Amino acid sequence: MDYRSHFRARIDGLKEEGRYRVFAELARQAGRFPRATRYRPDGSTHEVIVWCSNDYLGMGQNPVVLEAMRRAIDEVGAGAGGTRNISGTNHYHVLLERELADLHDKEAGLLFTSGYNANEAALSTLCRLMPGVIVFSDALNHASMIEGILHSKQEKRIFRHNDVAHLRELLEAEDGDAPKIIAFESVYSMEGDIAPLAEILDLAEEFGALTYLDEVHAVGLYGQNGAGIAEREGLMDRVDIINGTLGKAFGVGGGYVTGPEVMLDAIRSFAPGFIFSTSLSPVVAAGALASVRHVRAHNELRVRHQERAQRLKTLFRDSGIPVMPSESHIVPVMVGDPRCVKEGSDALLEDYGIYVQPINFPTVPKGTERMRFTPSPLHTDEMLRDLAAALNDLWSKLHLERAA
Amino acid sequence: MDYRSHFRARIDGLKEEGRYRVFAELARQAGRFPRATRYRPDGSTHEVIVWCSNDYLGMGQNPVVLEAMRRAIDEVGAGAGGTRNISGTNHYHVLLERELADLHDKEAGLLFTSGYNANEAALSTLCRLMPGVIVFSDALNHASMIEGILHSKQEKRIFRHNDVAHLRELLEAEDGDAPKIIAFESVYSMEGDIAPLAEILDLAEEFGALTYLDEVHAVGLYGQNGAGIAEREGLMDRVDIINGTLGKAFGVGGGYVTGPEVMLDAIRSFAPGFIFSTSLSPVVAAGALASVRHVRAHNELRVRHQERAQRLKTLFRDSGIPVMPSESHIVPVMVGDPRCVKEGSDALLEDYGIYVQPINFPTVPKGTERMRFTPSPLHTDEMLRDLAAALNDLWSKLHLERAA
Repeated sequence: MDYRSHFRARIDGLKEEGRYRVFAELARQAGRFPRATRYRPDGSTHEVIVWCSNDYLGMGQNPVVLEAMRRAIDEVGAGAGGTRNISGTNHYHVLLERELADLHDKEAGLLFTSGYNANEAALSTLCRLMPGVIVFSDALNHASMIEGILHSKQEKRIFRHNDVAHLRELLEAEDGDAPKIIAFESVYSMEGDIAPLAEILDLAEEFGALTYLDEVHAVGLYGQNGAGIAEREGLMDRVDIINGTLGKAFGVGGGYVTGPEVMLDAIRSFAPGFIFSTSLSPVVAAGALASVRHVRAHNELRVRHQERAQRLKTLFRDSGIPVMPSESHIVPVMVGDPRCVKEGSDALLEDYGIYVQPINFPTVPKGTERMRFTPSPLHTDEMLRDLAAALNDLWSKLHLERAA
Repeated sequence: MDYRSHFRARIDGLKEEGRYRVFAELARQAGRFPRATRYRPDGSTHEVIVWCSNDYLGMGQNPVVLEAMRRAIDEVGAGAGGTRNISGTNHYHVLLERELADLHDKEAGLLFTSGYNANEAALSTLCRLMPGVIVFSDALNHASMIEGILHSKQEKRIFRHNDVAHLRELLEAEDGDAPKIIAFESVYSMEGDIAPLAEILDLAEEFGALTYLDEVHAVGLYGQNGAGIAEREGLMDRVDIINGTLGKAFGVGGGYVTGPEVMLDAIRSFAPGFIFSTSLSPVVAAGALASVRHVRAHNELRVRHQERAQRLKTLFRDSGIPVMPSESHIVPVMVGDPRCVKEGSDALLEDYGIYVQPINFPTVPKGTERMRFTPSPLHTDEMLRDLAAALNDLWSKLHLERAA
């Protein structure tokens, strides 16, 4: 068999569909976010405004975080040197897990090298340890949750996105005594909408289901302490397991779950993805710890963040740009075609110095390709106006559909 | 259902088997490796010599690496800010991928947040993209390879560990035209033995199989440039895909694969674990880049590393400590019982200030529990002698079996 030709054909297929991905190569500039230098494929560079980062608060350049990382380098060096069990548990990991447990008001926290790994390992392991469990999973759950559920090889039921009536129907159809997990997100990152948390938790209690909540796009951003939507809604104590990330609003890297100690102990003890991975660099853990502490204490970052998002949505709506009905800080604009969204993003990048990555399949369903803007507290009024004007131009040039 | 009791019972089961894991909490000390401070559960501390780190060369505290990380913090800040596709490709990622491709003399390199993720994503994706593929997998392959193969849902055949005759038998039994992958490691980290590389590559060529080689415990450590066993044996060009890590000999964090561009493009484009993970902190990437360049240029580190391992094996053998027949830098000592190995390690830690983690199931098969020592160029003669003397004591005290 000619293996290279086989894979070449798969890549050619992506190119024909217009969804072959070209990564934008950036040099972020500490202290100048959201500005960055972009490397063109020919090696030349130009300055761009980054409009699609998940470093939602610009914590990736916060001096408190950077200083904590420098200090950790001086103290403990670069890497962890092993898996958590074999010499790779550093004091910073332990402190950070305690801080995260405290943030979410849970008994314990457990770190992973990414939020993806946290979801995959936690869900696959919890389910595998409960043979006969039925997982109820929101239709738009993140790939990491889907993979975790798949890898457990347990039964799953998919409820329509944020549809509590459908979830009830599915719960009613099952044996009342069977173990159940409801797995869902608070903020859905590609739509910007928010789960009906209280109603889902009511159902979980009525039907005796465990709840697993991904707050990856909410931690740092909602609630008085930045613990997420569950904190904002006063519902934290009713959620069993909360998953989060240290690589988005907290600006550093790594992922985690928090929850009852015995369940986290089970994940820690049985999940291959946890057991067999070298643990997070203590430098990253130290930076994340400083970031979580800072973000908890600075609610004004969250206020400003929400204000920026609202302002951008208003500017877009005023120009007839079809903003999707987001309730969160995420500002997605529907385009609906992989080639148009790529052509539009390329034009923004080269002609306007505006970097927004086209979002296509498998990140969103085919036919719902979009641009997704993430204004931060550091995006100025001028940047917002320039962006709205550029999109207005682009919508005319490319004859894209405007909002009614 | 009482979920907590359910999980409590699973944890109690581990405790009864004597294989419940208690992580040793360490504060590494840059500049003093292999010394570290250990936190006891009661919060008190004492100094220990770390004997089980995979920071094999002490690169985790090398000034060149630490300075590169400090510089990256100043330049680009803490985190990547997104997935590789959505604003998370930093210039350091690109430079590091080029360096790794060059190290292994391959067309391209691809970074992951860990070596575990690299194996899982690469193997599951390559296999999934070749329906009908048959994977031939060494019986002692690492969990990350096993999970990757499982997740692909393709056919697999397990050949006896390093047994080329058995591999030939299995290959002969299959349809000659079916696509095939042989997945194996060079250095097996829990035995310390080394695969018969040339013979496996001969079989791959004879039967038209792709080869996937995990060099995680060899990169940095073997070959004139530290590219691994395939370099040492002059066989690099005959291996299709080489997997490695930046978290062991290179001392920082993250994992990678190198290989033909079209295959890495396929992994990049189709692997959920790659697509949906926030990319490695550029600080980690910058540290790893400096480390790889340094380690390539300093063969004397490898010479000293091998000398230390040989010396420790000799000291152990002189005392009748049952060293397993390792051909590599890894010095495993068989104990064969989960409680004995735990009791022995606990005594070494508290009574001798020697930290070696007990290795138990699922890291090794039940009944083959062991201690695994990893001497580095920074372990002194005195440390080696102290260790051998402590083990000699311990073997007497616990009445453990001595080598013939």
